[in-house]
Amino acid sequence: MKKKYFKPNPNDPAPLTATATRLVRFEEVDPLGIVWHGRYPSYFEDARVRLFEKFDIAYLTLYGKGLVTPIKQLYVDYLLPLRFEDEVTIEALMHFSEAARINIEYIIRNAAGEVATTGYSVQMMMDRNDNMLITAPPFYQDFIEKWRNGGLA
Amino acid sequence: MKKKYFKPNPNDPAPLTATATRLVRFEEVDPLGIVWHGRYPSYFEDARVRLFEKFDIAYLTLYGKGLVTPIKQLYVDYLLPLRFEDEVTIEALMHFSEAARINIEYIIRNAAGEVATTGYSVQMMMDRNDNMLITAPPFYQDFIEKWRNGGLA
Amino acid sequence: MKKKYFKPNPNDPAPLTATATRLVRFEEVDPLGIVWHGRYPSYFEDARVRLFEKFDIAYLTLYGKGLVTPIKQLYVDYLLPLRFEDEVTIEALMHFSEAARINIEYIIRNAAGEVATTGYSVQMMMDRNDNMLITAPPFYQDFIEKWRNGGLA
Amino acid sequence: MKKKYFKPNPNDPAPLTATATRLVRFEEVDPLGIVWHGRYPSYFEDARVRLFEKFDIAYLTLYGKGLVTPIKQLYVDYLLPLRFEDEVTIEALMHFSEAARINIEYIIRNAAGEVATTGYSVQMMMDRNDNMLITAPPFYQDFIEKWRNGGLA
Repeated sequence: MKKKYFKPNPNDPAPLTATATRLVRFEEVDPLGIVWHGRYPSYFEDARVRLFEKFDIAYLTLYGKGLVTPIKQLYVDYLLPLRFEDEVTIEALMHFSEAARINIEYIIRNAAGEVATTGYSVQMMMDRNDNMLITAPPFYQDFIEKWRNGGLA
Repeated sequence: MKKKYFKPNPNDPAPLTATATRLVRFEEVDPLGIVWHGRYPSYFEDARVRLFEKFDIAYLTLYGKGLVTPIKQLYVDYLLPLRFEDEVTIEALMHFSEAARINIEYIIRNAAGEVATTGYSVQMMMDRNDNMLITAPPFYQDFIEKWRNGGLA
Repeated sequence: MKKKYFKPNPNDPAPLTATATRLVRFEEVDPLGIVWHGRYPSYFEDARVRLFEKFDIAYLTLYGKGLVTPIKQLYVDYLLPLRFEDEVTIEALMHFSEAARINIEYIIRNAAGEVATTGYSVQMMMDRNDNMLITAPPFYQDFIEKWRNGGLA
Repeated sequence: MKKKYFKPNPNDPAPLTATATRLVRFEEVDPLGIVWHGRYPSYFEDARVRLFEKFDIAYLTLYGKGLVTPIKQLYVDYLLPLRFEDEVTIEALMHFSEAARINIEYIIRNAAGEVATTGYSVQMMMDRNDNMLITAPPFYQDFIEKWRNGGLA
């Protein structure tokens, strides 16, 4: 019974996905023996960075084209704790959107495959002079079209 | 036009509040020159810890009484960026609840007094054997009663 | 022309070694575009943890036998900067010692194989009541003997 | 019996000093209940940043004059552990040097005034194109002269 963070339209193409793995570090664990809640944005970012690379929209690539995509919203649901040396997988699912924003859902699973954490982030688009963009730039609209037409599957 | 993260009942007592200040560190700033989005849980925690101390429900105090209050939900709205050496104030507002949970709203303001970041956290109550509590323990219900009756103002 | 952090005796067995790999994260990079100097203890720890596991003296294993090994000295030489997305290897070399201490040297290499960072750590031995040990406990002396006799190679 | 990290010449002026205070955060404490050893570079930096501001050689000021001063060596001696909510003071002592380098010693004291941690850092001087400087730039030599002549006391 997973929460729906984003509500797709019936004709939207499937989310783009990528997965990262990570071993819980000693330094990430708090005095109660579990990963401190504030470390999870780092876990999410590992999968987001892999996803952006996989689909050729990495931070530096976008920056080279004049586009910056700061995070405007972040949400985390903590379901099961993670502990030292736990091997986790982090899945990022980028949901389709035609707007000048990037909507990503995250699912962290522990070594037993149980869902330990879920969440989402919303990124806006800005040019390098900190102006918010109302519509995505042309090269990104091409990316959206390709996605809609199954060219990224 | 501030978002309402929690919806109070008409007769609820006012939130309990506390404020922390903090100077943005070099290490917190990313290559784009702004505080990396994943540092904000630490900012929120500074104010939450002050609030819990102020009202005598500090982590160690609760732990000594057999109560652990892990964070189950965390949300952040990024409105304005923070930069190196910015002096910020972080306000924590604990909203009234009779349930076995702790609902806190956060407001970060920059040196100019502008709201830079808002968000909230939800904490559940567990005993030290990781059993979720359905109702708050007696000492905490006393705390709630005192709050309702104006004894914490 | 590598620095000698530890001076072996002529008959000491070779160091025990292990290697970890790591991809530089966005959050680790400072406004100057390089990994902030204070992140390197985390890099060193990745290789130290792998080494301790490889030779069956992991933190939790030692703790289970009543032994705690806090770090008492840490040193870092910064030779070349690391940048976002750099893929690095971290080598830990545990130097032979009969004393109640653990001496480890670290070598971080960038993707081109150049030495980017070196350093060392010294750990003391304590029991779980925070008493410093003058000599290593029996099970650890067995470990030292095995090492001396080539049983760990 | 404090270690001498730097050996002054007989006629050197006294070190320049500054102090920062800090409250140990929950997130900084490891599963053993003490501040994780890798957090101390952040503690040192708090005092170093205050010192640089106090004597008008802040990072951004130097950068504006074309000077970058990356850390090339860092050393830490861990004497006593720090725990959650400990209030510590961090003293930075910049030792006199005519060379194109910045030598700083650090002393962390706990609330009881006991020395908990000491260490040092060495920074080199570079221009903004990553060229190592053999001699300090003219404005910094003026700073050294002023220091030698008692103008910074």
